[in-house]
Amino acid sequence: MEKPLKLLHASLNSRVMVELRNGVEYHGILDGYDVPHMNLVLKKTDQIVNTEQKAKHETVIVRGDNIIYISP
Amino acid sequence: MEKPLKLLHASLNSRVMVELRNGVEYHGILDGYDVPHMNLVLKKTDQIVNTEQKAKHETVIVRGDNIIYISP
Amino acid sequence: MEKPLKLLHASLNSRVMVELRNGVEYHGILDGYDVPHMNLVLKKTDQIVNTEQKAKHETVIVRGDNIIYISP
Amino acid sequence: MEKPLKLLHASLNSRVMVELRNGVEYHGILDGYDVPHMNLVLKKTDQIVNTEQKAKHETVIVRGDNIIYISP
Amino acid sequence: MEKPLKLLHASLNSRVMVELRNGVEYHGILDGYDVPHMNLVLKKTDQIVNTEQKAKHETVIVRGDNIIYISP
Amino acid sequence: MEKPLKLLHASLNSRVMVELRNGVEYHGILDGYDVPHMNLVLKKTDQIVNTEQKAKHETVIVRGDNIIYISP
Amino acid sequence: MEKPLKLLHASLNSRVMVELRNGVEYHGILDGYDVPHMNLVLKKTDQIVNTEQKAKHETVIVRGDNIIYISP
Repeated sequence: MEKPLKLLHASLNSRVMVELRNGVEYHGILDGYDVPHMNLVLKKTDQIVNTEQKAKHETVIVRGDNIIYISP
Repeated sequence: MEKPLKLLHASLNSRVMVELRNGVEYHGILDGYDVPHMNLVLKKTDQIVNTEQKAKHETVIVRGDNIIYISP
Repeated sequence: MEKPLKLLHASLNSRVMVELRNGVEYHGILDGYDVPHMNLVLKKTDQIVNTEQKAKHETVIVRGDNIIYISP
Repeated sequence: MEKPLKLLHASLNSRVMVELRNGVEYHGILDGYDVPHMNLVLKKTDQIVNTEQKAKHETVIVRGDNIIYISP
Repeated sequence: MEKPLKLLHASLNSRVMVELRNGVEYHGILDGYDVPHMNLVLKKTDQIVNTEQKAKHETVIVRGDNIIYISP
Repeated sequence: MEKPLKLLHASLNSRVMVELRNGVEYHGILDGYDVPHMNLVLKKTDQIVNTEQKAKHETVIVRGDNIIYISP
Repeated sequence: MEKPLKLLHASLNSRVMVELRNGVEYHGILDGYDVPHMNLVLKKTDQIVNTEQKAKHETVIVRGDNIIYISP
């Protein structure tokens, strides 16, 4: 059994895909998170809307309560 | 009587279907969860939108507050 | 006076109807619940959308925060 | 001054009207409630949608967080 | 400085207007409230939808989490 | 660094603009607030819908959980 | 690993972009925040709707629960 937060920790410094409730995806390098909110810090992030890149962000703090799933 | 979390635990390592509030389904192997949030780790996951497979994810962390139901 | 959770407990092993916020109904045998979330375990469940059966689930864990009402 | 929960208690065994966030009304006899969630047990309940009766339920547990108002 | 709950208390037994998240207004005499939920008891209440009176309620318990504002 | 609640306190007795989640704006004199909900008391308030004044309220209690931002 | 709140703190006095759940963006100088709500104080703020500037605010308190992401 792998706990969600342990998997999140193991994903630090690697690329993850995050989908938010508004349908937007963020693809970036997981640089940090907090507990229990699951707020994330992503680096070198592409913001994807309808499979098209809308913006790039060197760094982004994503609030955890908007997240649907995180795919390491 | 079977408690929800006990049933969830008994479903570890077997295939489950998860429906989220945005109508998307995830079919995968339950690899972990946490309490009380019911965040899930799913492996070998198919993401199903309108009965069609939209994506595959080797691993996914699904936030529990988006989940409508889990069917083991 | 009958407390909601006491009535829920008295409904164990009998058929209940559950309506969720997304308008979907689940008809099944109440096999378990937890407190205070009111997550439910339903067995032999019919999923009803617009009065038509959409799916059957041998077992389902329904998250309590999606529930509008439970009718024993 | 009349506290909301004291008024609710005084309404036990009498007919109440409950409107939910999805616009549906329930008219029934208040048989129980809990604190602090304000989950209700209603008996001999008519479910009203757009001023028309849609269903009757001998007993219903209504989750408090869906309730807009209760009129004794 | 006037604290919101102190102002609410000072409004007991006088007429208030309450607007809810679903856009419906209630005009009635404030007969009670609770803390911290800000659930209200209103007497002699007019329910106003799109500036037209839709219903009258001798007594109404309004759940606080539906309230946008209260105007004494 | 200026803490949000300290700035709110410093804005007492001066005019503020408040935007709510339903898109409505309130322009009024900040007469009070509470912590941690950030419920507000506004005086001499104009209610603005689509840049047009819809109503005036001598006094208004605005629930904090509807607020998007406050501009002193 | 960089914690979200530590990154937020490091962004004080520099320009940040904040996107809210209603799709509106705020571009301003981060002047303060609080924990755990992540309410923000922004200075010299441009409010951007559909990539067009809609308003300017010398100072704005943004409630944290409306925030999707913050980009330093």
